[in-house]
Amino acid sequence: MNIFFVADLSTGSFFLNKEESKHCIKVLRLKKGDQILVINGKGSRYQAVIQNPDSNACNVTILNEERHQITRSYHLTIAIAPTKNMDRFEWFLEKSTEIGIDRIVPIICQHSERKDLKTDRLGKILISAIKQSGQLFLPELTQPIVYKDFIRQSFNGDKFIAHCDAGERRVFKNSLIAGKNVLVLIGPEGDFDSAEIKLALEQGFVPVTFGESRLRTETAGIVACHTFCLVNQ
Amino acid sequence: MNIFFVADLSTGSFFLNKEESKHCIKVLRLKKGDQILVINGKGSRYQAVIQNPDSNACNVTILNEERHQITRSYHLTIAIAPTKNMDRFEWFLEKSTEIGIDRIVPIICQHSERKDLKTDRLGKILISAIKQSGQLFLPELTQPIVYKDFIRQSFNGDKFIAHCDAGERRVFKNSLIAGKNVLVLIGPEGDFDSAEIKLALEQGFVPVTFGESRLRTETAGIVACHTFCLVNQ
Repeated sequence: MNIFFVADLSTGSFFLNKEESKHCIKVLRLKKGDQILVINGKGSRYQAVIQNPDSNACNVTILNEERHQITRSYHLTIAIAPTKNMDRFEWFLEKSTEIGIDRIVPIICQHSERKDLKTDRLGKILISAIKQSGQLFLPELTQPIVYKDFIRQSFNGDKFIAHCDAGERRVFKNSLIAGKNVLVLIGPEGDFDSAEIKLALEQGFVPVTFGESRLRTETAGIVACHTFCLVNQ
Repeated sequence: MNIFFVADLSTGSFFLNKEESKHCIKVLRLKKGDQILVINGKGSRYQAVIQNPDSNACNVTILNEERHQITRSYHLTIAIAPTKNMDRFEWFLEKSTEIGIDRIVPIICQHSERKDLKTDRLGKILISAIKQSGQLFLPELTQPIVYKDFIRQSFNGDKFIAHCDAGERRVFKNSLIAGKNVLVLIGPEGDFDSAEIKLALEQGFVPVTFGESRLRTETAGIVACHTFCLVNQ
């Protein structure tokens, strides 16, 4: 059954937003009486029926409702520098959402070539990815934040920085403990600069490596995300 | 130092091909006397110096030569249905090469919407990815093959089919044994059909799942590749 997203689900009857209405009526050509699934990205899944197939504001009535809670007590945050090529960052967002991530923080670093983001468009990629992969929880995508401001924030869990600079680094896989909150920092194309690495170490971040291959920013993000999922699988 | 690819490295002096010559001389604007690295994707890495900066056929002389052998005795083959959207398949090729893969076999399945591939262009993506990630071995990308023909071929190692159909499936991570050759089948957007799954089981393929999330074809490919790498890390 086709899945639609409504951020604020009410009870009884409600409207799909303009974009979802258009997709439902114009693209999928659903009719009055057709059934759909609606999720809110916060654990609810409603089975609903189309009442008024308006392609600007499709009205639906709820048939039944499931509410799910996140069953795990630990979460993954990846703080990652947006790539110069936006496609690569969007690909990271889609793939990490499919694989499973809780929070994505775009960080602006010394070597960042991209310092702004269209978070509206990026939010849609996350929604599309949870619909596609059958998930009920939408990852949080924060506004971009300057690296030095971000890493001074407190974090309840294990903190890692994945950099390519010289110096001792642990293998990421072997540094993870199942069931613990994790925060990983992933740098931009030119890597973190030495002052940024020094600052992270002072803040208690553990330097890690993903292996011998030199990974692109977005690949490192996916590898970090998938390693976390496997360790907790 | 900039890295260039030459499939057949000779000794003494040789030419970069037209594309690499153009990149070297027109894009990077390297001059006579500048040093470069040259790899052949089979374990050789040459340090070389530009003799004749011709943007059609750049002539270089070897300064020194390293030859590496693959140190591991096991390998990963992923047989995967090319996606309808070519970008997605290209992403898979780039990312699996960065992460580490030995052989990619495009398979044409019952539900495949794409039945042809421009392997020339795809080969360039692999070369670019090994240069980018500092690897010395180019994965093998075979010509597309019909699924039923492929899975009847013998394979010396453990064989898995990742499908989304009903029936018992093992968790992929827990089915892998470090140090063994692995072959994984990944289906197209509409999954394998039931006859294809039946045939694979008859041929000794073990059905596996990557977890609860429903992954896109290219994501499943990357997850399979990275799981293999982590188990062997």
